[in-house]
Amino acid sequence: MSEDFKQAALDYHAHPRPGKISVEITKPTQTARDLSLAYSPGVAEPVREIAKDPENAYRYTAKGNLVAVISDGTAILGLGNLGPLASKPVMEGKGVLFKRFAGIDVFDIEVNSKTPQEFIETVARIADTFGGINLEDIKAPECFEIEQALIEQCQVPIFHDDQHGTAIVTAAGMLNALELQGKRIEDAKIACMGAGAAAIACMKLLISCGARAENIFMLDRKGVIHSGRDDLNEYKAMFATETDRRTPLDACRDADVFVGLSGPDLFTPEMLKSMAPNPIIFACSNPDPEIKPELALATRDDIIMATGRSDYPNQVNNVLGFPFIFRGALDVRAREINEEMKVAAVHAIKDLAKEPVPQEICDAYGVDKLEFGKEYIIPKPLDARLLEFVPAAVARAAVDSGAATRPYPEHYPLTSMDKIR
Amino acid sequence: MSEDFKQAALDYHAHPRPGKISVEITKPTQTARDLSLAYSPGVAEPVREIAKDPENAYRYTAKGNLVAVISDGTAILGLGNLGPLASKPVMEGKGVLFKRFAGIDVFDIEVNSKTPQEFIETVARIADTFGGINLEDIKAPECFEIEQALIEQCQVPIFHDDQHGTAIVTAAGMLNALELQGKRIEDAKIACMGAGAAAIACMKLLISCGARAENIFMLDRKGVIHSGRDDLNEYKAMFATETDRRTPLDACRDADVFVGLSGPDLFTPEMLKSMAPNPIIFACSNPDPEIKPELALATRDDIIMATGRSDYPNQVNNVLGFPFIFRGALDVRAREINEEMKVAAVHAIKDLAKEPVPQEICDAYGVDKLEFGKEYIIPKPLDARLLEFVPAAVARAAVDSGAATRPYPEHYPLTSMDKIR
Repeated sequence: MSEDFKQAALDYHAHPRPGKISVEITKPTQTARDLSLAYSPGVAEPVREIAKDPENAYRYTAKGNLVAVISDGTAILGLGNLGPLASKPVMEGKGVLFKRFAGIDVFDIEVNSKTPQEFIETVARIADTFGGINLEDIKAPECFEIEQALIEQCQVPIFHDDQHGTAIVTAAGMLNALELQGKRIEDAKIACMGAGAAAIACMKLLISCGARAENIFMLDRKGVIHSGRDDLNEYKAMFATETDRRTPLDACRDADVFVGLSGPDLFTPEMLKSMAPNPIIFACSNPDPEIKPELALATRDDIIMATGRSDYPNQVNNVLGFPFIFRGALDVRAREINEEMKVAAVHAIKDLAKEPVPQEICDAYGVDKLEFGKEYIIPKPLDARLLEFVPAAVARAAVDSGAATRPYPEHYPLTSMDKIR
Repeated sequence: MSEDFKQAALDYHAHPRPGKISVEITKPTQTARDLSLAYSPGVAEPVREIAKDPENAYRYTAKGNLVAVISDGTAILGLGNLGPLASKPVMEGKGVLFKRFAGIDVFDIEVNSKTPQEFIETVARIADTFGGINLEDIKAPECFEIEQALIEQCQVPIFHDDQHGTAIVTAAGMLNALELQGKRIEDAKIACMGAGAAAIACMKLLISCGARAENIFMLDRKGVIHSGRDDLNEYKAMFATETDRRTPLDACRDADVFVGLSGPDLFTPEMLKSMAPNPIIFACSNPDPEIKPELALATRDDIIMATGRSDYPNQVNNVLGFPFIFRGALDVRAREINEEMKVAAVHAIKDLAKEPVPQEICDAYGVDKLEFGKEYIIPKPLDARLLEFVPAAVARAAVDSGAATRPYPEHYPLTSMDKIR
């Protein structure tokens, strides 16, 4: 980041008033009668109705459109464990994206907890306030235990975006890249550099989409995760393969796919050269990818390349997923965001990339055209059609899989923010 | 409440969308550059600044104007313990009042806790999210322990409105009523019917305002709280007096002041008749007061009467206090809301009632005029001058008492919502 950009970011957050959000009133409050409906004595009526049936909270309060974005600040962006308060600009920013792209109201909550158990207790006790919970920037492996416990304890959908959001958008781009390279996911050999929350979730979801576990070589700092290692936590151990491959270069040899969720410049030209013909490189370390796109393309020209950056083609950006996934889940009042819903989101995002792109989207990115191909395998964040494609797919999957407690909405698919209720 | 009014209250909460609040974005988010400032990568800069100095959270996030309204749902309005979720319309409504009257953003949080300790832990762990915390509808005596523990554990102001908000507005009206009746608070004999959170807080604050503890007779369900009783919790025990008075009628005999925070129709004409000349009756049980104003005035005509109801003169309404008290506290970044700040709020509210009332306020209430006197001892909630009088007094007291961490604001006193930063 340039110094100018850094200053612009600070100014953006500070002026004209601090932060990025406000809470606003949606009902009339001018007269004494208005206030008697909003608060005492009128408010007693919805209270009684909710006491009779908790589902009435969706009818008389903001709960049904309200998501909590919650962090303990242990893994903030690429910056590490800076504590809950320092995570607040990120959590507010996440709320901004939920609102901007899917009309969802977000309370950001920063939790000062010393142990995963404290975090779980805290979130579980406030969970009923919300229609859903998006966990954010919690370090691995604690995030797995936290997510699982909260899914078991809470009545609302729990979604750890750093895992599943990343996985969904990665998988969407990957399916398109495989098609363009003429490969089948069932046959694809995959090297995954990184064994953190995002990497594990990505590989799990690729398996749900058809990949074979035995074709995946996952790498942590010590090399290939294989069945002979005794230093693996239970989450990594699920990916231990019977193999004599040991080094990153071993893992990449003849691989069709490289997925990097690790650190800058860890994927070398030598590794790239060792891959199968027409390989797919997702170098998602941010802001500095595992290999610079210029270097990768100079090394070989038969690749499809994606990164986490907006200044290169094929940005893997979670914002393509989470706002729309929650939109669909909230609109059918799903009790969870299950695997079927995640896979549905993958296919919806994948399919949108194949649609002709309206000129205004190209204009928003200052390009002449965007056309399905090696440099456009994933939709752009400012593509308003995400709101049409993704929530509908997620809601349908929620209904079909039994996660929904409401029927598929009559006003679906959403074609504009105006249709959000 | 009429059936029509009940239905209007349900409709108000349900349509056109559920609930009374939304979260809105305050910064530009149209372009890709906007989004790169709001979220990744720009957001890393305020994160780093807050990691360096936690006070920077007030500069770069919404924290400084953000209050949590938090309940466990154990004492909702007059309805009792209906659980946290059923309290949500009330908490949202409280947020509406904070915003409407003082421009403060509120996240309502409903806590599902089994013990006071669980509630305390939960709130303490999320407290840094906010610039202040308003506790609400928590039953006594647990509310005292909860408030005290949170004051000790949190870095932001903690305020239990059912105690202190009620006490502040009551005391403001009381000081005016005493003046009008030609009585000195130091001499006033006070019968207090009720020994819950609000009653105890009211009596404590009246003492801070000059009342003498030995002049107060507090009544619980068993009669006068006196030093011979062995069934008192520590909070009631502070008000045990050396006396042979036992019954409510005993407590009222020759009293100058009756404060009711108990239940409907518990104050009888016989008790009223037994009071000193020119007595003051605050019958604040809601919606049905300890004595109906018509009956009280038919019983004797030398009284000043206040209730909790908007359809009689002299409504003791917490909304005269909490929005403005927090406004002042936030604007000087006070670490607590201390006794000096509460007393300052009392005097500011009291003083405003003596000011000539602009015609538009009379119009808002459909009356020809409002003039300081027996039927107008407390300002009206729609009096916009509360924003001018109360925050300035609270902020000044915070600065003078050492609770403030910022100087008295240059843009004070506030004369309109536009001046809120």
